[in-house]
Amino acid sequence: MTQPTRRQLANAIRFLAADAVETAKSGHPGMPMGMADIAEVLWNDYLRHNPNNPKWFNRDRFVLSNGHGSMLQYALLHLSGYDLPIEQLKAFRQLGSKTAGHPEHHETPGVETTTGPLGQGFANAVGFALAEKLLAQRFNRPELEIVDHRTYVFMGDGCLMEGVSHEAASLAGTWGLHKLVCFWDNNHISIDGNTDGWFTDNTPERFEAYGWNVVRDVDGHDPESIKAGIDAALAQSDKPTLICCRTTIGFGSPAKAGKESSHGAPLGKDELEATRKALGWEYGPFEIPEAIYGGWRAGGTGTLRQAEWEQQFDKYAAQYPQQAEELTRRSHGELPEDFIAKADAYIAQVAAEGPTIASRKASQLAIEAYAPLLPELVGGSADLAHSNLTLWKASKSVATDDANANYVYYGVREFGMTAIANGLALHGGFLPFDATFLVFSDYARNGVRMSALIPAHAIHVYTHDSIGLGEDGPTHQPVEHLASLRYIPNNDVWRPCDAVESAVSWKAAITRQDGPSCLVFSRQNLPHQPRDAQQIAQIEQGGYVLADAEGGTPDVILIATGSEVSLATEAKAQLDAAGLKTRVVSMPSTDVFLRQDAAYRESVLPNAVRKRVAIEAGVTGFWRQFVGLDGAVVGIDTFGASAPADALYKHFGITTEHVVEAAKAL
Amino acid sequence: MTQPTRRQLANAIRFLAADAVETAKSGHPGMPMGMADIAEVLWNDYLRHNPNNPKWFNRDRFVLSNGHGSMLQYALLHLSGYDLPIEQLKAFRQLGSKTAGHPEHHETPGVETTTGPLGQGFANAVGFALAEKLLAQRFNRPELEIVDHRTYVFMGDGCLMEGVSHEAASLAGTWGLHKLVCFWDNNHISIDGNTDGWFTDNTPERFEAYGWNVVRDVDGHDPESIKAGIDAALAQSDKPTLICCRTTIGFGSPAKAGKESSHGAPLGKDELEATRKALGWEYGPFEIPEAIYGGWRAGGTGTLRQAEWEQQFDKYAAQYPQQAEELTRRSHGELPEDFIAKADAYIAQVAAEGPTIASRKASQLAIEAYAPLLPELVGGSADLAHSNLTLWKASKSVATDDANANYVYYGVREFGMTAIANGLALHGGFLPFDATFLVFSDYARNGVRMSALIPAHAIHVYTHDSIGLGEDGPTHQPVEHLASLRYIPNNDVWRPCDAVESAVSWKAAITRQDGPSCLVFSRQNLPHQPRDAQQIAQIEQGGYVLADAEGGTPDVILIATGSEVSLATEAKAQLDAAGLKTRVVSMPSTDVFLRQDAAYRESVLPNAVRKRVAIEAGVTGFWRQFVGLDGAVVGIDTFGASAPADALYKHFGITTEHVVEAAKAL
Repeated sequence: MTQPTRRQLANAIRFLAADAVETAKSGHPGMPMGMADIAEVLWNDYLRHNPNNPKWFNRDRFVLSNGHGSMLQYALLHLSGYDLPIEQLKAFRQLGSKTAGHPEHHETPGVETTTGPLGQGFANAVGFALAEKLLAQRFNRPELEIVDHRTYVFMGDGCLMEGVSHEAASLAGTWGLHKLVCFWDNNHISIDGNTDGWFTDNTPERFEAYGWNVVRDVDGHDPESIKAGIDAALAQSDKPTLICCRTTIGFGSPAKAGKESSHGAPLGKDELEATRKALGWEYGPFEIPEAIYGGWRAGGTGTLRQAEWEQQFDKYAAQYPQQAEELTRRSHGELPEDFIAKADAYIAQVAAEGPTIASRKASQLAIEAYAPLLPELVGGSADLAHSNLTLWKASKSVATDDANANYVYYGVREFGMTAIANGLALHGGFLPFDATFLVFSDYARNGVRMSALIPAHAIHVYTHDSIGLGEDGPTHQPVEHLASLRYIPNNDVWRPCDAVESAVSWKAAITRQDGPSCLVFSRQNLPHQPRDAQQIAQIEQGGYVLADAEGGTPDVILIATGSEVSLATEAKAQLDAAGLKTRVVSMPSTDVFLRQDAAYRESVLPNAVRKRVAIEAGVTGFWRQFVGLDGAVVGIDTFGASAPADALYKHFGITTEHVVEAAKAL
Repeated sequence: MTQPTRRQLANAIRFLAADAVETAKSGHPGMPMGMADIAEVLWNDYLRHNPNNPKWFNRDRFVLSNGHGSMLQYALLHLSGYDLPIEQLKAFRQLGSKTAGHPEHHETPGVETTTGPLGQGFANAVGFALAEKLLAQRFNRPELEIVDHRTYVFMGDGCLMEGVSHEAASLAGTWGLHKLVCFWDNNHISIDGNTDGWFTDNTPERFEAYGWNVVRDVDGHDPESIKAGIDAALAQSDKPTLICCRTTIGFGSPAKAGKESSHGAPLGKDELEATRKALGWEYGPFEIPEAIYGGWRAGGTGTLRQAEWEQQFDKYAAQYPQQAEELTRRSHGELPEDFIAKADAYIAQVAAEGPTIASRKASQLAIEAYAPLLPELVGGSADLAHSNLTLWKASKSVATDDANANYVYYGVREFGMTAIANGLALHGGFLPFDATFLVFSDYARNGVRMSALIPAHAIHVYTHDSIGLGEDGPTHQPVEHLASLRYIPNNDVWRPCDAVESAVSWKAAITRQDGPSCLVFSRQNLPHQPRDAQQIAQIEQGGYVLADAEGGTPDVILIATGSEVSLATEAKAQLDAAGLKTRVVSMPSTDVFLRQDAAYRESVLPNAVRKRVAIEAGVTGFWRQFVGLDGAVVGIDTFGASAPADALYKHFGITTEHVVEAAKAL
């Protein structure tokens, strides 16, 4: 082989994918074989990236939203020179490899986001493109466009069927994200077969209805047609682009091309051999001729590109040192040096003032205090700004071209919001928070899970956290949500009991770099709880002794969170009076508390004290890990009801009286 | 007042709504005031229903997808003569009333589905319309169209922003549900204000892209314009219709009409007074002149309509007695008389055969056994038919006009699927099941919650239930999902350990009338567990002694579910050999077990035996309610990984060896 053809370059992807799936006896060959030509054109002719530094800040972002085609991405990373050697491709889908079944951001260099759950990669990409737009607005100066990159997305029919694609596409259109370029792998096949029976949308018209630029009828196997599509996208100045590519799934396989049989299973030894013949590929499994590597790496002018950019950036830094410093800090995900000191000062101030307010209001005050310190903070809510209390004085809609735009009116789109926030976090330069009612975290549930898995440093604010929201009734009253969110691995849930704990929970969510936090706030007022300095410091440990029994080991421990902590302190007074030495433990974050060392946990919940009552306006089973078989839980295991909050607390028996009774009955 | 005008009839809605919200000091007056004219025209001139019998089977269905406007529906029900007296409207949003903050199907006659979580009412309505189509296909005969009704939906901007609207609208278009008529309350206002900043879709074009008939530019305050829109919808024969109604939120309020301030809060005493003046409404709160009632009830020819239909049905029953009997049985939600006997015979047969197969395969065999007994069974999957194993021999796509159509190819639309299944169940005549991977129950999470709250007799099938799915990796491996689904009130989760328990779980889900069940199945093979007849019967109690210690009280109890039961039985052999009397409890449904009486629970898990180990490939905290502080749990509290299943079980320590160690260490 001398100079490889484009088709040969693409075939390298096809066989790396098909052979890896064959070796693993598991995986999805059809999509990589179908999109190989598009990928080859995009990566070799357009994508501005640096395989030697996958974290170069101004790189184009590439997102594989149809993540089951992971071998396409691994082949691209390998061929273009990322640190993903051929041994890794041979170990596709094996324990400890960097080539998981679906692309995992935390495992593989060059994987911008974790994909597989369909539609979310696309929504993450909308977040990437929004991040680029906002950074460009804030930092670019005439002739010094130091933030200037595109976001490219591959997506399949499955992504387009998912509801989250609607939410994300609608917002991308509204925001005019013209640097977002999406390729629809229009192969007419999904797992169940030909999509005629379940996917008859006119997708081009649908996207035009969102205000997108749509390039129709691209031949996804013709490089010239693909290039014309991309060129049309790059010419846009105010609309995102959808390039509709007709492709053949499993392209090259004589018996399985165009069929669902190529989608999610190995081609099989004989069919793979037949495919080699059909495509004229004379090389063995995982054998890539040097000329092919040369053809791919010829595109890898990444180091040069980064160097050019760094020159530009140096000029920028000379002229705009403050901005350059801010961008550098933000792009590294570092907090301002004085943030923690200032946050602690704010917390001390709140403790001194001791206001009795709703924790959602305390949350808003915390945002107001922290946001001026954090230009990277970009907030938002799913059409509940005045209920979630997520606006602060300096909030400016991202739909504007204001340099300080920092607030996203997401509309009623909880899932899209969460996935876009994940994208903002992954892009770098931003610390996003989003918000809705706690019960509607359900709508975003897999997005929250993905925050934790990716992991993305995103903050999810959930207000109206129990039957305490009152009249809206059971559709709006969370019961199982606290427990369910806490069970998501690597997700820190906080439910503060007053303004002090609220301020601390925000600080914890901001300083936590390695994953998301869910901050859960009340609609109703919560009384201030007095604490000494040590107790204030201990809030960050997730659970602590808020009020202790006098004179040694307690007889009874009351454990509570959020709005129920005041029930516990009231019950303590009655129990103390009745001669039961009672300790109150406030447990704003069970996740964080359970990460503390055994000695600390024992100091808060001594193993020997088994008379324990947990109080939370949510499902009781969750609390058995703290109170055991011999304790009691005051909570609610049914749906709520529509009535004023006070009436509901009485009706469901979440009262001081009931806590006292439960403790005495142990 | 002599003959009231249409506007006066509509104003009755406006003031009932505004006064009820004012009295409750909580609620949403703007939407009822904005949609009152549309509602008046629809209910008085078109809606075929019978206020005296809200359950008349052939009634038109009316769904308020923008459920926060609940007072619109309560006013309509009251005015048109349903059993919802004025006292109930005065008690809006109070404990024990039939007028909850959002419409609750289980509380209020005439409320077809519970709404409030936006977009889902619309998706339920697609299920209603599909049910009508399928029943008509199966039962109607020339000149005897005994199933023939429409489904009308009110929906707001919020419903249209939600992703689930995309999924449901796409399917409605594909299926050509021409008896579905939706009114878009296009008032340009959502909670955060004017929707220009976050909702710029061209909604008419979007719906045309789904294959809908769209009626543009209806004046939602002009009865003639509204009628023309509805007439255009009724003329359709192959497309659902979206009627785009320009309306003014809070219509009639001098200061708040057209503003978000009318959306979610009382108008206030003065503004309400000003609105009375502006609309010329001379009556006090909750005062409705008889002439107004007369104008509304003139539309109430429901009893006559039902009588006419019953005449038709008698003719039909005479000619087609078998079909009439089937439809009657199905419309009453009754199972065939011999179903339980036949199911038990099938279960006994499976127990005798004792196959070692994946429980997803056992599920398919159970469907194959039960489906021929249940023509009301309508299955489906979100593009995973061959992975979920949800097709059976007689499966026929509902996209056809086959009289026996019974299978829904939902495409990749988990949330829409679940909400449509809820609609199928609510309509009557169907027992729906849907399916996806367990991890993607996340996408449908609030739909499952709504199944339980409504409640809807729907069955959610979730396969690939743990790290045991292997190579697809952590995006596809559920960890927290079993616990999270179990915590949804009124939701029965089953995770069977073999083919016998699988068959029983299907029987339980089918016979359970008062709510949903989630049936959770493995990808991998599970060995058969031997049982006697009493044990087989006890499976239905959710948890039972599968293998007991010989000679009295056990020293140790192992509790397991699904694929981990075989680890427990293997561990028992080793523990018995080591001199520890060991009991194995299989716990396929913790929900059902926890409903058993205390004596039965004590017989399975004696309180005195505290050496307990729970084993489940999921989060451990959940099992503390069964093993207490002194027991142990073998499970997984992190995300999984991509590798073959066996390697993962070893890697995460979910092994017989580890169970034995944990038991010995107690």
